[in-house]
Amino acid sequence: MSVKPTVLKLGGSVVTDKEKTLTPNLQAIERLANEISRANVSHLVLVHGGGSFGHPVAEQYGLAEGYKDSSQIIGFSKTRQAMTKLNKLIVDFLISHNIPAVEVQPSSCVVTKAGRIQTMEDRPLRKMLEMGFVPVLYGDVVLDSEAGFAILSGDQLVSSLAINLDARRIVVGVDVNGLYTGDPKTDSSARLIQHITLEELKNLEPLIEGSKVTDVTGGMLGKMFELKPAVEHGIQTIIVNATELNRVYKALKGEKVVGTIIER
Amino acid sequence: MSVKPTVLKLGGSVVTDKEKTLTPNLQAIERLANEISRANVSHLVLVHGGGSFGHPVAEQYGLAEGYKDSSQIIGFSKTRQAMTKLNKLIVDFLISHNIPAVEVQPSSCVVTKAGRIQTMEDRPLRKMLEMGFVPVLYGDVVLDSEAGFAILSGDQLVSSLAINLDARRIVVGVDVNGLYTGDPKTDSSARLIQHITLEELKNLEPLIEGSKVTDVTGGMLGKMFELKPAVEHGIQTIIVNATELNRVYKALKGEKVVGTIIER
Repeated sequence: MSVKPTVLKLGGSVVTDKEKTLTPNLQAIERLANEISRANVSHLVLVHGGGSFGHPVAEQYGLAEGYKDSSQIIGFSKTRQAMTKLNKLIVDFLISHNIPAVEVQPSSCVVTKAGRIQTMEDRPLRKMLEMGFVPVLYGDVVLDSEAGFAILSGDQLVSSLAINLDARRIVVGVDVNGLYTGDPKTDSSARLIQHITLEELKNLEPLIEGSKVTDVTGGMLGKMFELKPAVEHGIQTIIVNATELNRVYKALKGEKVVGTIIER
Repeated sequence: MSVKPTVLKLGGSVVTDKEKTLTPNLQAIERLANEISRANVSHLVLVHGGGSFGHPVAEQYGLAEGYKDSSQIIGFSKTRQAMTKLNKLIVDFLISHNIPAVEVQPSSCVVTKAGRIQTMEDRPLRKMLEMGFVPVLYGDVVLDSEAGFAILSGDQLVSSLAINLDARRIVVGVDVNGLYTGDPKTDSSARLIQHITLEELKNLEPLIEGSKVTDVTGGMLGKMFELKPAVEHGIQTIIVNATELNRVYKALKGEKVVGTIIER
């Protein structure tokens, strides 16, 4: 690909109201569609999370544990439909801002093995980028060659896509300002890490792990785990607060912005 | 695959009101979901047409002719969304009848070359069948390695899937009783062909072609053209009127039913 693509992730906590089942955050989606449109990045891939669409049904049927019994089968179908509903809404907003967005359904082109991407057909997606489309993927339930089915997170998709497409930049939009040394909501000494290398991140891990960081930093360590391979690949990665105006816009444009830059 | 799958096509004129843009035929969809549920076929693949969802937008932007200029790009996005809308509705009805239906989005896994399927990733779909899901595909706009993009008809998909999955039977649900010797609406001497071989079909062609058969038999000759390779492969194919109660049900069960059987 002549132009290296940018991969933008919009977290489920940004595009949905995580507290209310099947409730999109329409105001955020509309604003972000506007920011993406204004940024006008060539070769953009968008990945969004499931938030209150994917998780409640998946949990009800225990899909995260893989296939156990036939009662889960209809739950897989229902979870898939919930993700289509959310994605359709987001793509509709993007199109209304004149962004040529095209859904790429992960469950139609990915098979995982024990929850990790085993094969992903990306010919349609590559052709879309070449033609000027904006492919839109999402965390999805997918078929798994060992477990029957699995939940494929948007973060795993982002990292895998960025590496395979040799992306120039990953922008991760979440509902906090970036990676903190502690929980800014409860710890007044917690400070935003503006720049971190993989080496520094490694040194930080025991520290933040000791303080149960998964909750403390709002699940940011799991995100880090997924993003690491892309950063190791040499792809600059920036985490920004997508609930704040113009953070995603600035990150897409490569402008200076509040957030955490992770580099090799 | 141990059990040979059945491929069911539901025409766009069955699941939508072809005269009214973006109008589903909810009554037909509900009845057919019920028939499919009662037939309880193991290893079923469903393919539906676009009807008044896909065609109007695709036509507005001249998508059938492939990529000509950048103004079509947003039209491709809009057509895709229209197909997702129709498919979501149909899959929702199937799920409400306890059928574990799962959308398989053709544009995510197929690339065509000059309008013909060049590559199709079918690993997710095969795994779905193995697990007991009912994959639901549809006529879609897809990326094309020569023309930029193309319209992939449900009929081309049906034939290709049936051959690749070594299907035991194809059931094609349309809005007429089957293949006629003429137009039953205007020609009182027209009679329904209950059984036809490929050899007989070939003999019939000049006759019906001479009378502009594409319109006369409601586009049945184009369907025949697409289905031929599957019939040549040895797959029994039956055309039935899906607007009539229980025709699809009986065809799925392999029971005697009004329609046209095509065999090698």
